[in-house]
Amino acid sequence: MNSKHQISPLFLTIFFLLVLGCTASPRKNIRSRRPCKEMVFYFHDIIYNGKNFKNATAAIVGSPAWGNKTILANNNHFGNVVVFDDPITMDNNLHSPPVGRAQGFYIYDKKEIFTAWLGFSFVFNSTAHKGSINFAGADPLMNKTRDISVIGGTGDFFMTRGVATIMTDSFEGEVYFRLRVDIKFYECW
Amino acid sequence: MNSKHQISPLFLTIFFLLVLGCTASPRKNIRSRRPCKEMVFYFHDIIYNGKNFKNATAAIVGSPAWGNKTILANNNHFGNVVVFDDPITMDNNLHSPPVGRAQGFYIYDKKEIFTAWLGFSFVFNSTAHKGSINFAGADPLMNKTRDISVIGGTGDFFMTRGVATIMTDSFEGEVYFRLRVDIKFYECW
Amino acid sequence: MNSKHQISPLFLTIFFLLVLGCTASPRKNIRSRRPCKEMVFYFHDIIYNGKNFKNATAAIVGSPAWGNKTILANNNHFGNVVVFDDPITMDNNLHSPPVGRAQGFYIYDKKEIFTAWLGFSFVFNSTAHKGSINFAGADPLMNKTRDISVIGGTGDFFMTRGVATIMTDSFEGEVYFRLRVDIKFYECW
Repeated sequence: MNSKHQISPLFLTIFFLLVLGCTASPRKNIRSRRPCKEMVFYFHDIIYNGKNFKNATAAIVGSPAWGNKTILANNNHFGNVVVFDDPITMDNNLHSPPVGRAQGFYIYDKKEIFTAWLGFSFVFNSTAHKGSINFAGADPLMNKTRDISVIGGTGDFFMTRGVATIMTDSFEGEVYFRLRVDIKFYECW
Repeated sequence: MNSKHQISPLFLTIFFLLVLGCTASPRKNIRSRRPCKEMVFYFHDIIYNGKNFKNATAAIVGSPAWGNKTILANNNHFGNVVVFDDPITMDNNLHSPPVGRAQGFYIYDKKEIFTAWLGFSFVFNSTAHKGSINFAGADPLMNKTRDISVIGGTGDFFMTRGVATIMTDSFEGEVYFRLRVDIKFYECW
Repeated sequence: MNSKHQISPLFLTIFFLLVLGCTASPRKNIRSRRPCKEMVFYFHDIIYNGKNFKNATAAIVGSPAWGNKTILANNNHFGNVVVFDDPITMDNNLHSPPVGRAQGFYIYDKKEIFTAWLGFSFVFNSTAHKGSINFAGADPLMNKTRDISVIGGTGDFFMTRGVATIMTDSFEGEVYFRLRVDIKFYECW
Protein backbone atom coordinates (compact mmCIF):
# COMPACT_ATOMS: atom_id res chain seq x y z
CA MET A 1 0.00 0.00 0.00
CA ASN A 2 2.55 2.54 1.08
CA SER A 3 5.20 0.57 -0.79
CA LYS A 4 5.10 3.20 -3.55
CA HIS A 5 5.83 5.93 -1.07
CA GLN A 6 8.70 4.00 0.38
CA ILE A 7 10.60 3.66 -2.80
CA SER A 8 9.74 6.84 -4.58
CA PRO A 9 12.16 9.29 -2.89
CA LEU A 10 15.12 7.06 -3.57
CA PHE A 11 14.11 6.17 -7.07
CA LEU A 12 13.01 9.67 -7.98
CA THR A 13 16.41 10.98 -6.95
CA ILE A 14 18.15 8.36 -9.02
CA PHE A 15 15.83 9.04 -11.92
CA PHE A 16 16.47 12.72 -11.65
CA LEU A 17 20.22 12.21 -11.69
CA LEU A 18 19.93 9.79 -14.57
CA VAL A 19 17.80 12.11 -16.66
CA LEU A 20 20.13 14.98 -15.89
CA GLY A 21 23.16 12.89 -16.71
CA CYS A 22 21.74 11.55 -19.91
CA THR A 23 20.59 14.80 -21.37
CA ALA A 24 23.42 16.95 -20.11
CA SER A 25 26.43 14.72 -20.56
CA PRO A 26 26.70 14.54 -24.34
CA ARG A 27 26.75 18.29 -24.80
CA LYS A 28 28.85 18.85 -21.72
CA ASN A 29 31.41 16.22 -22.57
CA ILE A 30 31.58 16.78 -26.28
CA ARG A 31 30.95 20.46 -26.69
CA SER A 32 32.56 21.98 -23.66
CA ARG A 33 34.32 25.31 -23.92
CA ARG A 34 36.66 24.20 -21.16
CA PRO A 35 39.85 22.83 -22.73
CA CYS A 36 40.54 19.13 -22.22
CA LYS A 37 44.26 19.83 -22.61
CA GLU A 38 46.47 22.93 -22.77
CA MET A 39 50.03 23.39 -23.95
CA VAL A 40 52.34 26.34 -24.55
CA PHE A 41 55.26 26.33 -26.96
CA TYR A 42 57.54 28.73 -28.76
CA PHE A 43 58.93 28.40 -32.23
CA HIS A 44 61.67 30.24 -34.02
CA ASP A 45 61.78 31.23 -37.67
CA ILE A 46 65.00 32.32 -39.39
CA ILE A 47 64.35 33.26 -43.02
CA TYR A 48 67.01 32.60 -45.62
CA ASN A 49 68.32 35.92 -46.94
CA GLY A 50 71.03 34.76 -49.34
CA LYS A 51 73.76 34.78 -46.68
CA ASN A 52 72.55 32.70 -43.72
CA PHE A 53 71.99 29.26 -45.24
CA LYS A 54 73.50 27.41 -42.31
CA ASN A 55 71.22 28.97 -39.69
CA ALA A 56 68.14 29.50 -41.82
CA THR A 57 65.06 27.46 -40.91
CA ALA A 58 62.80 28.98 -43.55
CA ALA A 59 63.02 29.99 -47.18
CA ILE A 60 61.02 32.16 -49.56
CA VAL A 61 59.71 29.80 -52.24
CA GLY A 62 57.01 31.86 -53.88
CA SER A 63 56.92 35.53 -54.69
CA PRO A 64 54.77 37.93 -56.69
CA ALA A 65 55.85 39.44 -60.00
CA TRP A 66 57.58 42.24 -58.08
CA GLY A 67 59.45 39.98 -55.66
CA ASN A 68 62.38 37.59 -55.45
CA LYS A 69 63.56 34.67 -53.29
CA THR A 70 66.03 36.35 -50.95
CA ILE A 71 64.19 39.45 -49.76
CA LEU A 72 60.58 39.59 -48.63
CA ALA A 73 58.66 41.61 -51.22
CA ASN A 74 57.45 45.16 -51.09
CA ASN A 75 53.81 45.88 -50.30
CA ASN A 76 53.84 44.12 -46.96
CA HIS A 77 55.34 41.00 -48.48
CA PHE A 78 52.05 40.37 -50.28
CA GLY A 79 52.48 37.21 -52.31
CA ASN A 80 55.48 35.73 -50.53
CA VAL A 81 55.26 32.04 -49.75
CA VAL A 82 57.64 30.84 -47.04
CA VAL A 83 58.38 27.20 -46.20
CA PHE A 84 59.72 26.47 -42.72
CA ASP A 85 61.16 23.84 -40.44
CA ASP A 86 61.46 25.69 -37.15
CA PRO A 87 62.65 24.42 -33.78
CA ILE A 88 60.01 24.30 -31.05
CA THR A 89 61.14 25.17 -27.55
CA MET A 90 59.44 25.20 -24.17
CA ASP A 91 60.61 28.71 -23.38
CA ASN A 92 61.42 31.82 -25.37
CA ASN A 93 65.10 31.00 -25.88
CA LEU A 94 66.18 30.10 -29.42
CA HIS A 95 69.05 28.11 -27.94
CA SER A 96 66.96 25.96 -25.60
CA PRO A 97 66.87 22.28 -26.53
CA PRO A 98 64.19 21.85 -29.21
CA VAL A 99 61.31 19.57 -28.22
CA GLY A 100 59.95 19.24 -31.75
CA ARG A 101 59.72 20.94 -35.12
CA ALA A 102 57.13 23.33 -36.55
CA GLN A 103 56.90 22.43 -40.24
CA GLY A 104 54.78 23.92 -42.99
CA PHE A 105 54.29 27.21 -44.76
CA TYR A 106 52.95 30.72 -44.47
CA ILE A 107 51.86 33.15 -47.13
CA TYR A 108 51.66 36.90 -46.83
CA ASP A 109 48.29 37.67 -48.32
CA LYS A 110 47.51 41.38 -48.13
CA LYS A 111 48.94 44.44 -49.86
CA GLU A 112 47.98 47.06 -47.31
CA ILE A 113 49.12 45.56 -44.01
CA PHE A 114 51.09 42.56 -42.76
CA THR A 115 48.87 39.54 -42.57
CA ALA A 116 49.47 35.88 -43.34
CA TRP A 117 47.86 32.48 -43.74
CA LEU A 118 49.37 29.47 -42.03
CA GLY A 119 49.31 25.75 -42.73
CA PHE A 120 51.70 23.74 -40.58
CA SER A 121 52.25 20.95 -38.08
CA PHE A 122 54.00 20.53 -34.79
CA VAL A 123 55.96 17.30 -35.09
CA PHE A 124 57.11 15.61 -31.89
CA ASN A 125 59.26 12.52 -31.54
CA SER A 126 60.61 12.51 -28.00
CA THR A 127 59.89 10.66 -24.80
CA ALA A 128 57.65 13.56 -23.76
CA HIS A 129 55.50 13.67 -26.91
CA LYS A 130 55.13 11.54 -30.01
CA GLY A 131 52.82 12.56 -32.81
CA SER A 132 51.72 15.68 -34.61
CA ILE A 133 49.32 18.58 -34.26
CA ASN A 134 47.99 20.13 -37.47
CA PHE A 135 47.10 23.81 -37.72
CA ALA A 136 45.48 26.10 -40.28
CA GLY A 137 44.18 29.63 -40.27
CA ALA A 138 44.55 33.32 -40.81
CA ASP A 139 47.29 35.15 -38.94
CA PRO A 140 46.64 38.91 -38.90
CA LEU A 141 50.06 39.42 -37.43
CA MET A 142 49.70 43.07 -36.47
CA ASN A 143 47.23 41.98 -33.79
CA LYS A 144 48.72 41.15 -30.40
CA THR A 145 47.04 37.73 -30.37
CA ARG A 146 45.61 35.72 -33.24
CA ASP A 147 43.53 32.55 -33.14
CA ILE A 148 43.98 29.73 -35.61
CA SER A 149 42.45 26.24 -35.70
CA VAL A 150 43.86 22.93 -34.59
CA ILE A 151 42.38 20.86 -37.41
CA GLY A 152 43.61 17.43 -36.36
CA GLY A 153 46.31 15.42 -34.71
CA THR A 154 48.04 12.06 -34.65
CA GLY A 155 49.86 9.90 -32.10
CA ASP A 156 49.62 11.46 -28.65
CA PHE A 157 47.36 14.09 -30.22
CA PHE A 158 45.12 11.59 -31.97
CA MET A 159 42.03 13.26 -33.45
CA THR A 160 42.40 16.43 -31.39
CA ARG A 161 40.77 19.69 -32.37
CA GLY A 162 41.07 23.09 -30.79
CA VAL A 163 42.19 26.67 -31.04
CA ALA A 164 45.75 27.95 -30.90
CA THR A 165 46.47 31.53 -29.89
CA ILE A 166 49.57 32.95 -31.52
CA MET A 167 51.60 35.88 -30.25
CA THR A 168 54.67 37.43 -31.84
CA ASP A 169 57.04 37.14 -28.92
CA SER A 170 59.98 38.82 -30.61
CA PHE A 171 61.39 39.69 -34.00
CA GLU A 172 64.61 41.05 -35.47
CA GLY A 173 64.28 42.89 -38.73
CA GLU A 174 62.88 40.65 -41.41
CA VAL A 175 65.04 37.62 -40.74
CA TYR A 176 64.05 36.29 -37.29
CA PHE A 177 60.80 36.05 -35.46
CA ARG A 178 59.61 34.00 -32.53
CA LEU A 179 56.02 32.99 -31.96
CA ARG A 180 54.42 31.89 -28.72
CA VAL A 181 51.61 29.40 -29.25
CA ASP A 182 49.00 28.67 -26.59
CA ILE A 183 47.21 25.54 -27.69
CA LYS A 184 43.84 24.74 -26.21
CA PHE A 185 42.35 21.41 -27.19
CA TYR A 186 38.58 21.12 -26.89
CA GLU A 187 38.34 17.68 -28.44
CA CYS A 188 40.50 14.99 -26.89
CA TRP A 189 40.13 11.30 -27.68
CA MET B 1 2.35 -8.39 -3.02
CA ASN B 2 0.86 -6.51 -5.91
CA SER B 3 3.17 -3.60 -5.14
CA LYS B 4 5.28 -4.56 -8.16
CA HIS B 5 2.29 -4.32 -10.44
CA GLN B 6 1.38 -0.94 -9.12
CA ILE B 7 4.62 0.72 -9.92
CA SER B 8 5.67 -1.01 -13.09
CA PRO B 9 3.59 0.94 -15.67
CA LEU B 10 4.89 4.25 -14.46
CA PHE B 11 8.46 3.12 -14.09
CA LEU B 12 8.47 1.20 -17.33
CA THR B 13 7.36 4.31 -19.17
CA ILE B 14 10.08 6.36 -17.53
CA PHE B 15 12.62 3.66 -18.22
CA PHE B 16 11.55 3.49 -21.82
CA LEU B 17 11.92 7.24 -22.25
CA LEU B 18 15.24 7.20 -20.46
CA VAL B 19 16.63 4.40 -22.59
CA LEU B 20 15.36 6.12 -25.70
CA GLY B 21 16.81 9.43 -24.61
CA CYS B 22 20.17 8.01 -23.63
CA THR B 23 20.79 6.02 -26.75
CA ALA B 24 19.30 8.45 -29.24
CA SER B 25 20.41 11.83 -27.95
CA PRO B 26 24.18 11.68 -28.49
CA ARG B 27 23.90 10.77 -32.16
CA LYS B 28 21.00 13.14 -32.74
CA ASN B 29 22.64 16.09 -31.06
CA ILE B 30 26.16 15.59 -32.24
CA ARG B 31 25.84 13.96 -35.62
CA SER B 32 22.83 15.64 -37.13
CA ARG B 33 22.74 16.34 -40.85
CA ARG B 34 20.58 19.37 -40.15
CA PRO B 35 22.82 22.47 -40.05
CA CYS B 36 23.09 24.24 -36.72
CA LYS B 37 23.86 27.49 -38.57
CA GLU B 38 23.76 28.68 -42.18
CA MET B 39 25.32 31.68 -43.87
CA VAL B 40 25.67 32.94 -47.43
CA PHE B 41 28.44 35.23 -48.63
CA TYR B 42 30.07 36.37 -51.84
CA PHE B 43 33.70 37.11 -52.42
CA HIS B 44 35.50 38.85 -55.23
CA ASP B 45 38.87 37.99 -56.70
CA ILE B 46 40.81 40.38 -58.95
CA ILE B 47 44.06 38.83 -60.11
CA TYR B 48 47.10 41.01 -60.66
CA ASN B 49 47.94 41.07 -64.37
CA GLY B 50 50.87 43.48 -64.42
CA LYS B 51 48.67 46.55 -64.94
CA ASN B 52 46.02 46.54 -62.19
CA PHE B 53 48.05 46.71 -58.99
CA LYS B 54 45.75 49.20 -57.31
CA ASN B 55 42.60 47.11 -57.73
CA ALA B 56 44.13 43.66 -57.57
CA THR B 57 43.19 41.51 -54.57
CA ALA B 58 45.16 38.44 -55.68
CA ALA B 59 48.54 37.68 -57.20
CA ILE B 60 50.15 34.74 -58.94
CA VAL B 61 53.01 33.65 -56.67
CA GLY B 62 53.84 30.22 -58.03
CA SER B 63 53.93 28.97 -61.58
CA PRO B 64 55.13 25.90 -63.44
CA ALA B 65 58.21 25.85 -65.67
CA TRP B 66 56.07 27.09 -68.57
CA GLY B 67 54.40 29.93 -66.68
CA ASN B 68 55.06 33.40 -65.28
CA LYS B 69 53.67 35.71 -62.61
CA THR B 70 51.45 38.04 -64.62
CA ILE B 71 49.45 35.66 -66.82
CA LEU B 72 47.81 32.44 -65.69
CA ALA B 73 49.68 29.57 -67.37
CA ASN B 74 48.72 27.47 -70.34
CA ASN B 75 47.31 24.00 -69.78
CA ASN B 76 44.39 25.15 -67.68
CA HIS B 77 46.66 27.14 -65.40
CA PHE B 78 48.05 23.87 -64.03
CA GLY B 79 50.67 24.77 -61.49
CA ASN B 80 49.65 28.33 -60.75
CA VAL B 81 49.54 29.31 -57.10
CA VAL B 82 47.48 32.40 -56.33
CA VAL B 83 47.43 34.26 -53.02
CA PHE B 84 44.38 36.38 -52.26
CA ASP B 85 42.86 38.92 -49.91
CA ASP B 86 39.36 39.30 -51.32
CA PRO B 87 36.48 41.43 -50.03
CA ILE B 88 33.47 39.50 -48.73
CA THR B 89 30.06 40.98 -49.41
CA MET B 90 26.53 40.02 -48.47
CA ASP B 91 25.28 40.29 -52.03
CA ASN B 92 26.74 39.81 -55.48
CA ASN B 93 27.92 43.41 -55.90
CA LEU B 94 31.68 44.01 -55.84
CA HIS B 95 31.01 47.54 -54.64
CA SER B 96 28.84 46.62 -51.68
CA PRO B 97 30.41 47.37 -48.29
CA PRO B 98 32.71 44.46 -47.44
CA VAL B 99 31.79 42.55 -44.27
CA GLY B 100 35.08 40.71 -44.05
CA ARG B 101 38.02 39.38 -46.03
CA ALA B 102 38.60 36.01 -47.68
CA GLN B 103 42.31 35.33 -47.27
CA GLY B 104 44.41 32.41 -48.40
CA PHE B 105 45.46 30.68 -51.59
CA TYR B 106 44.32 28.50 -54.44
CA ILE B 107 46.31 26.30 -56.77
CA TYR B 108 45.29 25.13 -60.19
CA ASP B 109 46.12 21.46 -60.09
CA LYS B 110 45.13 19.71 -63.33
CA LYS B 111 46.44 19.90 -66.89
CA GLU B 112 43.33 18.76 -68.72
CA ILE B 113 40.56 20.89 -67.21
CA PHE B 114 40.21 23.79 -64.79
CA THR B 115 40.26 22.59 -61.26
CA ALA B 116 41.77 24.01 -58.09
CA TRP B 117 42.57 23.35 -54.45
CA LEU B 118 41.68 25.95 -51.85
CA GLY B 119 43.03 26.78 -48.41
CA PHE B 120 41.66 30.01 -46.96
CA SER B 121 39.83 31.77 -44.16
CA PHE B 122 36.95 34.16 -43.86
CA VAL B 123 38.13 36.84 -41.45
CA PHE B 124 35.50 39.00 -39.78
CA ASN B 125 36.01 41.95 -37.48
CA SER B 126 32.77 43.91 -37.38
CA THR B 127 29.89 44.34 -35.00
CA ALA B 128 28.03 41.63 -36.92
CA HIS B 129 30.78 38.97 -36.77
CA LYS B 130 34.14 38.63 -35.06
CA GLY B 131 36.34 35.65 -35.72
CA SER B 132 37.36 33.41 -38.55
CA ILE B 133 36.15 30.40 -40.52
CA ASN B 134 38.79 28.11 -42.01
CA PHE B 135 38.23 26.20 -45.24
CA ALA B 136 40.06 23.54 -47.25
CA GLY B 137 39.19 21.35 -50.17
CA ALA B 138 39.09 20.58 -53.84
CA ASP B 139 37.33 23.00 -56.14
CA PRO B 140 36.50 21.35 -59.48
CA LEU B 141 35.46 24.70 -60.83
CA MET B 142 33.80 23.55 -64.01
CA ASN B 143 31.04 22.04 -61.86
CA LYS B 144 28.10 24.29 -61.07
CA THR B 145 28.47 23.66 -57.34
CA ARG B 146 31.43 22.33 -55.40
CA ASP B 147 31.63 21.27 -51.76
CA ILE B 148 34.63 22.02 -49.56
CA SER B 149 35.14 21.52 -45.83
CA VAL B 150 34.88 23.97 -42.98
CA ILE B 151 37.81 22.63 -40.97
CA GLY B 152 37.59 24.92 -37.97
CA GLY B 153 36.73 28.34 -36.68
CA THR B 154 37.56 30.91 -34.03
CA GLY B 155 35.74 33.71 -32.22
CA ASP B 156 32.05 33.71 -33.15
CA PHE B 157 32.77 30.57 -35.13
CA PHE B 158 34.63 28.81 -32.32
CA MET B 159 35.32 25.16 -33.17
CA THR B 160 32.77 25.02 -35.98
CA ARG B 161 32.88 22.38 -38.68
CA GLY B 162 30.75 22.02 -41.76
CA VAL B 163 30.50 22.05 -45.52
CA ALA B 164 30.63 25.08 -47.80
CA THR B 165 29.08 24.95 -51.24
CA ILE B 166 30.85 27.17 -53.75
CA MET B 167 29.35 28.51 -56.97
CA THR B 168 31.05 30.67 -59.57
CA ASP B 169 28.60 33.54 -59.62
CA SER B 170 30.34 35.51 -62.34
CA PHE B 171 33.68 35.96 -64.05
CA GLU B 172 35.31 38.31 -66.51
CA GLY B 173 38.11 36.87 -68.60
CA GLU B 174 40.91 35.68 -66.41
CA VAL B 175 41.13 38.67 -64.12
CA TYR B 176 37.89 38.79 -62.12
CA PHE B 177 35.68 36.14 -60.63
CA ARG B 178 33.06 36.14 -57.94
CA LEU B 179 32.18 33.14 -55.82
CA ARG B 180 29.00 32.56 -53.87
CA VAL B 181 29.58 30.50 -50.73
CA ASP B 182 26.75 28.76 -48.89
CA ILE B 183 28.16 27.73 -45.54
CA LYS B 184 26.39 25.05 -43.54
CA PHE B 185 27.76 24.38 -40.08
CA TYR B 186 26.99 20.96 -38.60
CA GLU B 187 29.11 21.39 -35.50
CA CYS B 188 28.40 24.48 -33.44
CA TRP B 189 29.81 24.99 -29.96
CA MET C 1 7.32 -4.20 4.07
CA ASN C 2 9.44 -6.46 1.99
CA SER C 3 8.04 -4.84 -1.13
CA LYS C 4 11.31 -2.92 -1.48
CA HIS C 5 13.26 -6.12 -1.51
CA GLN C 6 11.05 -7.63 -4.14
CA ILE C 7 11.60 -4.93 -6.68
CA SER C 8 15.15 -3.90 -5.98
CA PRO C 9 17.07 -6.66 -7.82
CA LEU C 10 15.21 -6.07 -11.06
CA PHE C 11 15.34 -2.31 -10.83
CA LEU C 12 18.90 -2.19 -9.65
CA THR C 13 19.96 -4.25 -12.63
CA ILE C 14 18.09 -1.96 -14.99
CA PHE C 15 19.46 1.09 -13.23
CA PHE C 16 22.93 -0.28 -13.46
CA LEU C 17 22.60 -0.91 -17.18
CA LEU C 18 21.05 2.51 -17.69
CA VAL C 19 23.77 4.31 -15.78
CA LEU C 20 26.39 2.34 -17.65
CA GLY C 21 24.67 3.06 -20.95
CA CYS C 22 24.22 6.73 -20.26
CA THR C 23 27.70 7.48 -19.11
CA ALA C 24 29.47 5.17 -21.52
CA SER C 25 27.54 5.67 -24.72
CA PRO C 26 28.43 9.26 -25.60
CA ARG C 27 32.13 8.66 -25.34
CA LYS C 28 31.89 5.23 -26.91
CA ASN C 29 29.83 6.40 -29.85
CA ILE C 30 31.49 9.70 -30.44
CA ARG C 31 35.02 9.24 -29.24
CA SER C 32 35.78 5.65 -30.10
CA ARG C 33 39.24 4.67 -31.22
CA ARG C 34 37.68 1.94 -33.32
CA PRO C 35 37.31 3.23 -36.89
CA CYS C 36 33.76 3.63 -38.19
CA LYS C 37 35.07 3.11 -41.73
CA GLU C 38 38.34 2.00 -43.31
CA MET C 39 39.65 2.33 -46.86
CA VAL C 40 42.93 1.63 -48.63
CA PHE C 41 44.06 3.38 -51.79
CA TYR C 42 47.20 3.97 -53.80
CA PHE C 43 48.14 7.10 -55.66
CA HIS C 44 50.80 7.75 -58.24
CA ASP C 45 52.87 10.90 -58.66
CA ILE C 46 54.87 11.64 -61.80
CA ILE C 47 56.77 14.90 -61.49
CA TYR C 48 57.33 17.06 -64.55
CA ASN C 49 61.05 17.13 -65.36
CA GLY C 50 61.08 19.18 -68.55
CA LYS C 51 60.67 16.17 -70.84
CA ASN C 52 57.62 14.20 -69.65
CA PHE C 53 54.77 16.68 -69.97
CA LYS C 54 52.34 14.15 -71.41
CA ASN C 55 52.69 11.68 -68.54
CA ALA C 56 53.41 14.11 -65.73
CA THR C 57 50.77 14.39 -63.00
CA ALA C 58 52.69 16.88 -60.86
CA ALA C 59 54.78 19.99 -61.38
CA ILE C 60 57.26 22.00 -59.35
CA VAL C 61 55.67 25.43 -58.88
CA GLY C 62 57.73 26.89 -56.09
CA SER C 63 61.43 26.66 -55.41
CA PRO C 64 63.97 28.29 -53.14
CA ALA C 65 66.58 30.76 -54.34
CA TRP C 66 68.89 27.87 -55.24
CA GLY C 67 66.29 25.86 -57.17
CA ASN C 68 64.37 25.79 -60.43
CA LYS C 69 61.14 24.35 -61.84
CA THR C 70 62.35 21.22 -63.61
CA ILE C 71 64.64 19.58 -61.07
CA LEU C 72 63.93 19.14 -57.38
CA ALA C 73 66.33 21.37 -55.47
CA ASN C 74 69.48 20.50 -53.59
CA ASN C 75 69.39 20.24 -49.81
CA ASN C 76 66.71 17.57 -49.72
CA HIS C 77 64.44 19.59 -51.99
CA PHE C 78 63.93 22.06 -49.15
CA GLY C 79 61.66 24.77 -50.45
CA ASN C 80 60.14 22.95 -53.40
CA VAL C 81 56.40 23.28 -53.78
CA VAL C 82 54.78 20.63 -55.97
CA VAL C 83 51.20 20.69 -57.26
CA PHE C 84 49.64 17.38 -58.23
CA ASP C 85 46.66 15.69 -59.82
CA ASP C 86 47.45 12.02 -59.32
CA PRO C 87 45.39 8.97 -60.27
CA ILE C 88 44.07 6.91 -57.35
CA THR C 89 43.97 3.15 -57.81
CA MET C 90 42.72 0.27 -55.69
CA ASP C 91 45.96 -1.66 -56.06
CA ASN C 92 49.61 -0.80 -56.53
CA ASN C 93 49.51 -0.76 -60.33
CA LEU C 94 49.88 2.63 -62.02
CA HIS C 95 47.97 1.26 -65.00
CA SER C 96 44.95 0.01 -63.06
CA PRO C 97 41.75 1.93 -63.79
CA PRO C 98 41.79 5.07 -61.63
CA VAL C 99 38.93 5.32 -59.13
CA GLY C 100 39.52 8.99 -58.35
CA ARG C 101 42.11 11.74 -58.25
CA ALA C 102 44.43 12.89 -55.49
CA GLN C 103 44.68 16.67 -55.92
CA GLY C 104 46.62 19.24 -53.97
CA PHE C 105 50.18 20.10 -53.09
CA TYR C 106 53.20 19.10 -51.07
CA ILE C 107 56.16 21.13 -49.91
CA TYR C 108 59.55 19.85 -48.97
CA ASP C 109 60.25 21.66 -45.75
CA LYS C 110 63.59 20.60 -44.25
CA LYS C 111 67.20 21.11 -45.30
CA GLU C 112 68.77 18.15 -43.52
CA ILE C 113 66.50 15.25 -44.48
CA PHE C 114 63.57 14.55 -46.77
CA THR C 115 60.36 15.61 -45.18
CA ALA C 116 57.23 17.23 -46.56
CA TRP C 117 53.92 18.86 -45.69
CA LEU C 118 50.79 17.81 -47.50
CA GLY C 119 47.47 19.50 -48.25
CA PHE C 120 45.28 17.59 -50.67
CA SER C 121 41.96 15.91 -51.40
CA PHE C 122 40.82 12.59 -52.73
CA VAL C 123 38.14 13.42 -55.28
CA PHE C 124 35.74 10.66 -56.30
CA ASN C 125 33.02 10.76 -58.92
CA SER C 126 32.13 7.18 -59.74
CA THR C 127 29.30 4.80 -58.95
CA ALA C 128 31.41 3.43 -56.09
CA HIS C 129 32.17 6.78 -54.42
CA LYS C 130 31.05 10.37 -54.88
CA GLY C 131 32.54 13.15 -52.84
CA SER C 132 35.86 14.19 -51.42
CA ILE C 133 38.14 13.51 -48.49
CA ASN C 134 40.40 16.35 -47.33
CA PHE C 135 43.82 15.74 -45.80
CA ALA C 136 46.52 17.81 -44.14
CA GLY C 137 49.65 17.05 -42.20
CA ALA C 138 53.35 16.48 -41.92
CA ASP C 139 54.90 13.71 -43.98
CA PRO C 140 58.34 12.75 -42.62
CA LEU C 141 58.86 10.59 -45.66
CA MET C 142 61.95 8.73 -44.48
CA ASN C 143 59.72 6.97 -41.94
CA LYS C 144 58.14 3.72 -43.07
CA THR C 145 54.68 4.96 -42.09
CA ARG C 146 53.46 8.49 -41.48
CA ASP C 147 50.15 9.65 -40.04
CA ILE C 148 48.31 12.69 -41.36
CA SER C 149 44.83 14.01 -40.53
CA VAL C 150 41.57 13.63 -42.38
CA ILE C 151 40.28 17.14 -41.73
CA GLY C 152 36.89 16.87 -43.41
CA GLY C 153 34.88 15.37 -46.20
CA THR C 154 31.95 15.93 -48.52
CA GLY C 155 29.40 13.78 -50.37
CA ASP C 156 29.79 10.13 -49.35
CA PHE C 157 32.42 11.31 -46.87
CA PHE C 158 30.27 14.08 -45.41
CA MET C 159 31.87 15.58 -42.29
CA THR C 160 34.27 12.68 -41.76
CA ARG C 161 37.40 13.00 -39.68
CA GLY C 162 40.16 10.51 -39.13
CA VAL C 163 43.77 9.55 -39.56
CA ALA C 164 45.44 8.41 -42.78
CA THR C 165 48.60 6.33 -42.65
CA ILE C 166 50.86 6.91 -45.62
CA MET C 167 53.53 4.52 -46.87
CA THR C 168 55.90 5.01 -49.77
CA ASP C 169 55.07 1.90 -51.73
CA SER C 170 57.60 2.46 -54.49
CA PHE C 171 59.65 5.16 -56.15
CA GLU C 172 61.84 5.56 -59.21
CA GLY C 173 64.53 8.20 -58.99
CA GLU C 174 63.04 11.61 -58.40
CA VAL C 175 60.28 11.42 -60.99
CA TYR C 176 57.85 8.72 -59.86
CA PHE C 177 56.58 7.66 -56.48
CA ARG C 178 53.60 5.69 -55.31
CA LEU C 179 51.95 6.11 -51.93
CA ARG C 180 49.72 3.65 -50.15
CA VAL C 181 47.13 5.36 -47.96
CA ASP C 182 45.27 3.53 -45.20
CA ILE C 183 42.41 5.77 -44.22
CA LYS C 184 40.73 5.23 -40.87
CA PHE C 185 37.68 7.35 -40.19
CA TYR C 186 36.78 7.86 -36.54
CA GLU C 187 33.98 10.31 -37.16
CA CYS C 188 31.29 9.18 -39.58
CA TRP C 189 28.02 11.05 -40.02
